[in-house]
Amino acid sequence: MTMMRTHHCGQLSLSQVGDTVTLNGWVDKVRNLGGFLFLDLRDRFGLTQCVSEGESESLSNRTLQELKAESCVQIRGCVRARPQGMKNLEIATGAIEVLIQEVTVWSKADPLPFQFGQESSEQLRLKHRYLDLRDPSLRQRIVARSQLTSSLRKLLEEHDFLDLETPYLYKSTPEGAREYLIPARVSPGQFYALPQSPQLFKQMYMVGGMDRYYQLVKAFRDEDLRADRQPEFTQVDCELSFVNEVAVRQIFTDVVRRLVNGFLGRECVTDIPQMSFEEALHAYGNDKPDTRFEMLLQDCSELWRDSSFQAFSAVVAAGGVVNAIVVEGQAAHMSRKDLDALNQEALNLGAKGLAWAKCNGTELQDLQSPLKKFVDEPLWSQLQVQLGVKSGDLLLFCAGPFDLVKAVLGKIRLSLGERLGYMDPQQLKFLWVVDFPLLEQDEETGRWAARHHPFCMPQAQDLPLLRTQPEKVRACAYDLVCNGYEVAGGSIRNHDLAVQKQVFAAIGLSEEEAESKFGFLLEALRYGPPPHGGIAFGWDRFVMLMTACDAIRDVIAFPKTLSGQCLMTQSPAPVTQQELDTLGVVHRVTS
Amino acid sequence: MTMMRTHHCGQLSLSQVGDTVTLNGWVDKVRNLGGFLFLDLRDRFGLTQCVSEGESESLSNRTLQELKAESCVQIRGCVRARPQGMKNLEIATGAIEVLIQEVTVWSKADPLPFQFGQESSEQLRLKHRYLDLRDPSLRQRIVARSQLTSSLRKLLEEHDFLDLETPYLYKSTPEGAREYLIPARVSPGQFYALPQSPQLFKQMYMVGGMDRYYQLVKAFRDEDLRADRQPEFTQVDCELSFVNEVAVRQIFTDVVRRLVNGFLGRECVTDIPQMSFEEALHAYGNDKPDTRFEMLLQDCSELWRDSSFQAFSAVVAAGGVVNAIVVEGQAAHMSRKDLDALNQEALNLGAKGLAWAKCNGTELQDLQSPLKKFVDEPLWSQLQVQLGVKSGDLLLFCAGPFDLVKAVLGKIRLSLGERLGYMDPQQLKFLWVVDFPLLEQDEETGRWAARHHPFCMPQAQDLPLLRTQPEKVRACAYDLVCNGYEVAGGSIRNHDLAVQKQVFAAIGLSEEEAESKFGFLLEALRYGPPPHGGIAFGWDRFVMLMTACDAIRDVIAFPKTLSGQCLMTQSPAPVTQQELDTLGVVHRVTS
Repeated sequence: MTMMRTHHCGQLSLSQVGDTVTLNGWVDKVRNLGGFLFLDLRDRFGLTQCVSEGESESLSNRTLQELKAESCVQIRGCVRARPQGMKNLEIATGAIEVLIQEVTVWSKADPLPFQFGQESSEQLRLKHRYLDLRDPSLRQRIVARSQLTSSLRKLLEEHDFLDLETPYLYKSTPEGAREYLIPARVSPGQFYALPQSPQLFKQMYMVGGMDRYYQLVKAFRDEDLRADRQPEFTQVDCELSFVNEVAVRQIFTDVVRRLVNGFLGRECVTDIPQMSFEEALHAYGNDKPDTRFEMLLQDCSELWRDSSFQAFSAVVAAGGVVNAIVVEGQAAHMSRKDLDALNQEALNLGAKGLAWAKCNGTELQDLQSPLKKFVDEPLWSQLQVQLGVKSGDLLLFCAGPFDLVKAVLGKIRLSLGERLGYMDPQQLKFLWVVDFPLLEQDEETGRWAARHHPFCMPQAQDLPLLRTQPEKVRACAYDLVCNGYEVAGGSIRNHDLAVQKQVFAAIGLSEEEAESKFGFLLEALRYGPPPHGGIAFGWDRFVMLMTACDAIRDVIAFPKTLSGQCLMTQSPAPVTQQELDTLGVVHRVTS
Repeated sequence: MTMMRTHHCGQLSLSQVGDTVTLNGWVDKVRNLGGFLFLDLRDRFGLTQCVSEGESESLSNRTLQELKAESCVQIRGCVRARPQGMKNLEIATGAIEVLIQEVTVWSKADPLPFQFGQESSEQLRLKHRYLDLRDPSLRQRIVARSQLTSSLRKLLEEHDFLDLETPYLYKSTPEGAREYLIPARVSPGQFYALPQSPQLFKQMYMVGGMDRYYQLVKAFRDEDLRADRQPEFTQVDCELSFVNEVAVRQIFTDVVRRLVNGFLGRECVTDIPQMSFEEALHAYGNDKPDTRFEMLLQDCSELWRDSSFQAFSAVVAAGGVVNAIVVEGQAAHMSRKDLDALNQEALNLGAKGLAWAKCNGTELQDLQSPLKKFVDEPLWSQLQVQLGVKSGDLLLFCAGPFDLVKAVLGKIRLSLGERLGYMDPQQLKFLWVVDFPLLEQDEETGRWAARHHPFCMPQAQDLPLLRTQPEKVRACAYDLVCNGYEVAGGSIRNHDLAVQKQVFAAIGLSEEEAESKFGFLLEALRYGPPPHGGIAFGWDRFVMLMTACDAIRDVIAFPKTLSGQCLMTQSPAPVTQQELDTLGVVHRVTS
């Protein structure tokens, strides 16, 4: 037989009853039920129950019983219907079993370092990732990732995107994150860098007339890793010619809608609403709102301006703000201890504190709060009307500089959302965030830098402000947000050489620097570049959300730890002096 | 309008006559035919003829005429049928033209540094690769590459392959080619390496039960670049569980057949024949035979052993060989100068020379050759019979050590094939080469090394020879060859820990070295690994053959030069001292 199997382990049903079949897979479980020996055989596709009835010449039940779980075997046998009452309707092959005729042991398994489905150290699982991949939970996520990738490619190709490649050995362009450098042996003293994104290559594809480009591609950032970061990550990188912002969002709304609904098998996404950066910041305290629940940040600064509560009125007088969130129906459910914990969280985030008020009824007398003595009837009435407070609600106030208050209450809102069960991972709430500022100012140096990257097109109406009020210039940029995560981001790019030069000037890049780093871009813009723009998805994160897990390493087959190590292969590792000599590189020992 | 165009430039036909349309693209050509001004507008999809008749308020023919070629514009106008006799049946849109109503200039083009379709320096084209991509010849190859990629993915997914990712930041395993190293900032003194192939990760996927894996993935080799090599290249990397050699070849014969025939739109490949390594070496002089033509290398050592031609008989007596090739019908067409050139080629390749004989008829007296005085009737008769010589053929002989003779005549055969027009790039001759030696000996050190990589399974019947006659051990390995190029190579891998250890021992890897380099593989083989094997396609080369060009850089959008440079982005490049300091790396200035 050419093929080592006739079927895989998720394939047999009543229509094969009577057939002799050959399966391959791993011993999932062996049970001896007095003379009958049941062996569950598992592969990527499913699980088939095999059974041996008593001894035969070629096959002893003892041999089977001695097979350790996760040994790899081939089983030849005859398909038969399971007896009435023994069918398992939960699995695809649950109506049949295979009467074992012959077993070939491909390889035996030593006792496993950890058990599937049971708690065990993540370090141990990462070291033996090849075993963890056999655990159904990880296996299903990795298979789902592959299926999502395949569906996504089809959808993009239906939209005339070409799958086009870009180089990994790129040039160092020290903007944004730190890069991984590669000494170039053939050009001593020079280095390649691994790309943080194929941004300029995809723009060159557009100048080259390729019209629509996509690529699933690795990008690299040598950052100090925090939770949920990886030194290499997968982007779905896309670029289109002859589009404006609206067109890009329209096309990718279609792609995401069909991808998500097709994968989940239900109408999860219909349209994707849109929100400005400013609105997101005001109402959610950040630029990636989790819109699965409300509990918005509300400004009530003016109400406190003339109040007798000095701590608030002084802040407002000094140009700061007072914001509130209304936690519906929680007045009776939050203990003093809960409120102290929230206050501590706010303090940790840099706030002066979090003031609370329980609205046990609608009258002022029903108010229970440390602030109560500062609240008179008119203020209480205004607060109720403006914030939309109802009887039974909990109010939380935070006062201070605008940015701080938004950041603190934005995080408090998320803590409460999680605690109150408002963040169901099965629910996916997508949102376009638009009208981002083009630039941001470094607090220490006062220098302006591109908020996204320096190739974003400024919004036409804001262009005159680039020299005078750079903070007011909005970019033709957009992020796709889902459940509080940025899953994609993009912009329309500068195809106008003069505007591109203005942006470089605004971020303090001299003409010489611009030429040395991006000379080829400036040159390319001289030869009829098309209007173009694009988007890049953080694919690890997207798959994480689609499979309802909460860390990207749960959807990466071979992830690295927070210190950038692969525990399975023990990478990175020292290299020989000879190799370093060839590169002309010395590793400096720092004392 | 959300979308900036209603159609692309390859779309309009008679069925849109009367419609108002908006197109975008590049000015391919402008012709002024006395009052009528024709503008050919081009995009990735095709070319549409636009026409302006006389002046109007909003549009002057002068403006249009002043548009330089390759400027980028939008044209709005009305579709009309071309007059009888003016239709161009060679292009899809050749039956219509667009009467221009409005033109928007997106960007003007400076005069181009080179002209499409005309000879120009490759350096100049590489520097302005974004323009070269607009040249229809390169554009078509890059688009074809993307289409082939897409078709290949579909075929592999039909065969249950999952598109699975592997890391790029890997560990240095100094086997085979030189690697690109990346200093790991977070682990001072340690390095990542860019993978030469994802070999061990795909094997880990198999141990992890993923069953069938594929990936289009970049691989990296820091070799001194020769013609047609790139420091990074694209592999179609595949691995399958529960397969033997025959099954792998059967599956990939199907994939290649459908891919090639589908792409070419004709039955180019039916089955793919098979040839042993030894047969290939004997008959073609190398392990990647170009089977578009015969002209095989034939051994005639025995015939010369007792001949009076000392130069040959001495070689045979010393254990060497005499080989011949028969160049059909060329006796009359090869001048003395041609033959001298061939002789010089053989000398350059290290041979002692190339002896020729023109068979102007079938009688000995018709023989014209410097060897004639050494050839008697019996020898002549034997030569004719054994080599299959016919009247009018040219014979070429080479004598010396086996390896040298095969190498020299193998190359002479290819030179002649090219010269005689036997190597039609439109013809694709695929071949499986099988039964490769497992090991090869380093001439200088005498050490044995893996011919492919040390994870290949030895053929079972040869296993006992591993200690005693390692040169005789054949691997379960196979190459897919097309037109003299290796387009894919693979093998069945060791899933048996004991055999894997024997192979490591045979190549002189101590247990400590094996543990430090491949410890995780040895560990993984303890936990029920499946029988598995795979194959990897050199995708650049495959696409090169499918698009009938002769260098892989012709099918790579952004290739590097022989010195590893990207002329467009000026990469590699120096980096700042600050960046090096962060990495703890010093570049040693060698004097």
